[in-house]
Amino acid sequence: MTRIAIDAMGGDFAPSEIVKGAVWAASDYKVPIELVGQIDKIQEVLDEIAKKGITSNRGGYFIKNIKVDLSKLDIKLTQADEVIEMGEAPGVAIRKKKKSSIVLAVDAVAKGSSDAVVAAGSTGAAMASSLFGLGRIKGVERPAIAATLPTKKDPVILIDAGANSSSTPEMLKQFALMGAMFAKNVYNRETPKVGVLNIGEEEEKGNQLVKDTYKLLKENAEGFAFVGNIEGKELFQGDVDVVVCEGFVGNVALKTIEGCSMMLFKLIQQEFKTDLVSKIVGLLAKPFMKRIYKRINYEEFGGALLLGVKGITVISHGRSSSYAIKNAVRVAKEAVESGVNKKIAELVS
Amino acid sequence: MTRIAIDAMGGDFAPSEIVKGAVWAASDYKVPIELVGQIDKIQEVLDEIAKKGITSNRGGYFIKNIKVDLSKLDIKLTQADEVIEMGEAPGVAIRKKKKSSIVLAVDAVAKGSSDAVVAAGSTGAAMASSLFGLGRIKGVERPAIAATLPTKKDPVILIDAGANSSSTPEMLKQFALMGAMFAKNVYNRETPKVGVLNIGEEEEKGNQLVKDTYKLLKENAEGFAFVGNIEGKELFQGDVDVVVCEGFVGNVALKTIEGCSMMLFKLIQQEFKTDLVSKIVGLLAKPFMKRIYKRINYEEFGGALLLGVKGITVISHGRSSSYAIKNAVRVAKEAVESGVNKKIAELVS
Repeated sequence: MTRIAIDAMGGDFAPSEIVKGAVWAASDYKVPIELVGQIDKIQEVLDEIAKKGITSNRGGYFIKNIKVDLSKLDIKLTQADEVIEMGEAPGVAIRKKKKSSIVLAVDAVAKGSSDAVVAAGSTGAAMASSLFGLGRIKGVERPAIAATLPTKKDPVILIDAGANSSSTPEMLKQFALMGAMFAKNVYNRETPKVGVLNIGEEEEKGNQLVKDTYKLLKENAEGFAFVGNIEGKELFQGDVDVVVCEGFVGNVALKTIEGCSMMLFKLIQQEFKTDLVSKIVGLLAKPFMKRIYKRINYEEFGGALLLGVKGITVISHGRSSSYAIKNAVRVAKEAVESGVNKKIAELVS
Repeated sequence: MTRIAIDAMGGDFAPSEIVKGAVWAASDYKVPIELVGQIDKIQEVLDEIAKKGITSNRGGYFIKNIKVDLSKLDIKLTQADEVIEMGEAPGVAIRKKKKSSIVLAVDAVAKGSSDAVVAAGSTGAAMASSLFGLGRIKGVERPAIAATLPTKKDPVILIDAGANSSSTPEMLKQFALMGAMFAKNVYNRETPKVGVLNIGEEEEKGNQLVKDTYKLLKENAEGFAFVGNIEGKELFQGDVDVVVCEGFVGNVALKTIEGCSMMLFKLIQQEFKTDLVSKIVGLLAKPFMKRIYKRINYEEFGGALLLGVKGITVISHGRSSSYAIKNAVRVAKEAVESGVNKKIAELVS
């Protein structure tokens, strides 16, 4: 049975929110978990859950007293003495802190005691330890981060969302392929539609990288349908399954979307606080706003997948609440069970 | 007195919305204008305005019967036999169509009959004709597009928003300087705060271009304060005046923001249409939503400025309504009167 290893010490609200989310997932999805971190601190959170259930007001949702029977859950605890902090240089940190929670969580997958990792700490450390600890799938030049974004219709996969700061057309071609396998096997998109993120629709638009990538994908669309260039504003139409780009551009786009959505909800909140009438209308509108927030909140998607390594690593937002971690565990479980890595290995080699 | 030349034939809703916006601006801001295009078609719109006033339901605002006294406005008409269409390759088109509305509108500035151009047609054609017709300011390596974006506080300037698909650190340094002069002289920001759009806050983050740009700006912040790297999500905090990036990245960010905002407003609209209760709440919430829409709608900013050429070119959105054009004329007028080009010339040389 699929077991998910979780870096219990990674993230702004670790270990509390991480442990709560992990337990919640174990209970909801009947998935065995392995919590990696300082056991005494993890145990404190478990004791709180045993007494009061899961309560959290992080991440925009208010969760109250969700009862779980810990004795019926398959939860393994693995001691990790060290923690890699957000500011540390990833490459140095994973070599220096061999007993850190992220390194040992990845190690659990490498050794086979778990099948996937969920990590909400330093993205760089999660990538470096996965690359180092799990190794690349044979034939994959560079792993890439596949992020799931909300659209007007079904979500779209943006790859690479920041694993590599620069790329070649050949790398982007592999990202397209890995993203397509993810869309097909995890999101059940039959013959995924793949586009290139560009600044115009025409073939001759953009910088040299995207022009060359366009040509490569046009001639080598194996396992997916190439639909050409996709502009930033079309990302949200939901007419395409996978959008390929360089990590730098993808990460800027991802964070811009996050910032833009947050600003809009902030402006809406402010607008509904100007006087008594606005407060009343705001109260009436609240359930509707909540539904929209739920649809676009990154916490619903749990985290982004690092594709191309021999194992599944789900990279969650640093500000992940228990709800985000619960969803991240679900994503990890689905990715393992879909066999997406096997499909990538077959197609790449 | 400042006269603004307007490409009356450029844009999805030309000439109707363009002429209406131009007349509206002439009336509201007491600014002389020069409409460049097919005079018979322009005259038709003017006749309609004379009879019924300005009416428009484009661009999210419903405008009805705004009365203007055409006889009191300073409106010059200049015949242009040709129009450059959206799909045409800009470089070829401006050489082939020497009597096109955009080429002749730029020509009006080059000859001195007008002081600035407003263009809502092909961005490439507007850039190419400006570069060719007006020439670069001495010392400026490459012109750049400065777009104004909404934030939680005051707007921020994103430069380059798409004039160049690739750049060097030296070019980005000049963009920083031009953006800062724009922020200072047009938006009255004393000692503008300038940041580099990046995927992390730390100096060593990002690709080689942004790393080198960081170093250059740190050592050469003349006329502005360098505040380091700015992540996509921080764009909307309003804590910085100018954000510098490569044109490809800037254009992706700009269009992503547009798409993301449009999706959110679409989702809100849908949510307020599900049943009778939602429709009633939606009606009550409408005035509040309108205020937020007004705050983030790109039409409020009128258009982006092409900085670095000897003249002012305002590049408006292809879907510009009369309201957007009216604001674009205001931006053009303010830019001319601020003497931003003179300041750029002084600092660059």
